[in-house]
Amino acid sequence: MAKKLRSPEPKTARISESTVRRLSLYLRLLQEAESGGQETISSEELADRSGTTAAQVRKDLSVFGSFGKRGLGYSVPELLREIREILGLNRRWKVALVGAGKIGSALVEYRNFQLRGFDIVAVFDSDPAKIGRRWGSQVVLDDATMERVLAEREIEIAIVAVPAEAAQSVVDRLVASGVSAILNFAPVRLRVPDDVALRNVDLVVEMEGLAFALNRKAS
Amino acid sequence: MAKKLRSPEPKTARISESTVRRLSLYLRLLQEAESGGQETISSEELADRSGTTAAQVRKDLSVFGSFGKRGLGYSVPELLREIREILGLNRRWKVALVGAGKIGSALVEYRNFQLRGFDIVAVFDSDPAKIGRRWGSQVVLDDATMERVLAEREIEIAIVAVPAEAAQSVVDRLVASGVSAILNFAPVRLRVPDDVALRNVDLVVEMEGLAFALNRKAS
Repeated sequence: MAKKLRSPEPKTARISESTVRRLSLYLRLLQEAESGGQETISSEELADRSGTTAAQVRKDLSVFGSFGKRGLGYSVPELLREIREILGLNRRWKVALVGAGKIGSALVEYRNFQLRGFDIVAVFDSDPAKIGRRWGSQVVLDDATMERVLAEREIEIAIVAVPAEAAQSVVDRLVASGVSAILNFAPVRLRVPDDVALRNVDLVVEMEGLAFALNRKAS
Repeated sequence: MAKKLRSPEPKTARISESTVRRLSLYLRLLQEAESGGQETISSEELADRSGTTAAQVRKDLSVFGSFGKRGLGYSVPELLREIREILGLNRRWKVALVGAGKIGSALVEYRNFQLRGFDIVAVFDSDPAKIGRRWGSQVVLDDATMERVLAEREIEIAIVAVPAEAAQSVVDRLVASGVSAILNFAPVRLRVPDDVALRNVDLVVEMEGLAFALNRKAS
């Protein structure tokens, strides 16, 4: 057993978004290693497969008081347990989807969310043509009922997949209802209070980054 | 007319990914300003609406030799033209989609790609049940024809939306066919040569980041 010094609260408070992203990648590699029956993993292996350096891996993991043993590496099940605990993945999360369009439809059926502990338990739209339709295990709800349903179903995370012009007002309602973690797909910069976690997935921004890279190569 | 010092090649070579992301956001704000008939915009306004500081905006834009005038700000049409040119958006881009699953389906119909200059001109899948199906303006092609179609249609950007276990081999084929810009949705870390631009959209990683934030608040 590796020795652990654990005082998560003050330590996790300092963790940057990029560290959290790397922890997610390590977690995925550890899960693969576990299902392959591998018992230990080196910082070099984690680094190589997550596109970083062994020193970075050791630094990331030492923050949580987890230390590999020289020549042996990290215990796979132990590190899995620790990262799951840090990321809050030793439980399931209830998620609402706002916006029953094309992207919303793909997300509802996105197997990896469920596999990784995220359950979409409510879908909202404002379009009368969509309300009442069955979507997998969900029925699309009238977004006028959003505040009530969010409370009843104890939803903590929301995915916003509405048109850009509707996004801010949806987010304001979510925040007023106590939702403090939002994944936004609308191509717009949203304002949220400091204590609300907001992640943006902006597909056009990603494509423009690729166009920039190609343009630079060509010039 | 603002004075311009332009020597794009060596300058753009130093631009970081985060700068490019901000340029995309400025572009969007400028387009909104233009369609609202606004002729000038201040660095403060750009900063406020893109979640950064006025100093950062001025720094980002000065790299390209674009300088606002004190008290007047930047010329909206001029700045639009410059950012479009830098990002390579004064032309249209031909895009292939590999993987005709749920996410692929949403992307093919994603209006914002077309609006911003990205045309999906080929869709590939390996599933006989999907090959030959009509998807919007596209027919799903057998991925065995990928190399030929990529060349014939002069495709420069590919979106990979296949299962994790298939992604690396798809990417290897794309790269061998000369595609050097890839947007990856598969939840896996891909290896590409240094001269290939790769962006990853990893939805589970985003959700885990939100779970981490909630978990930290609760602890």
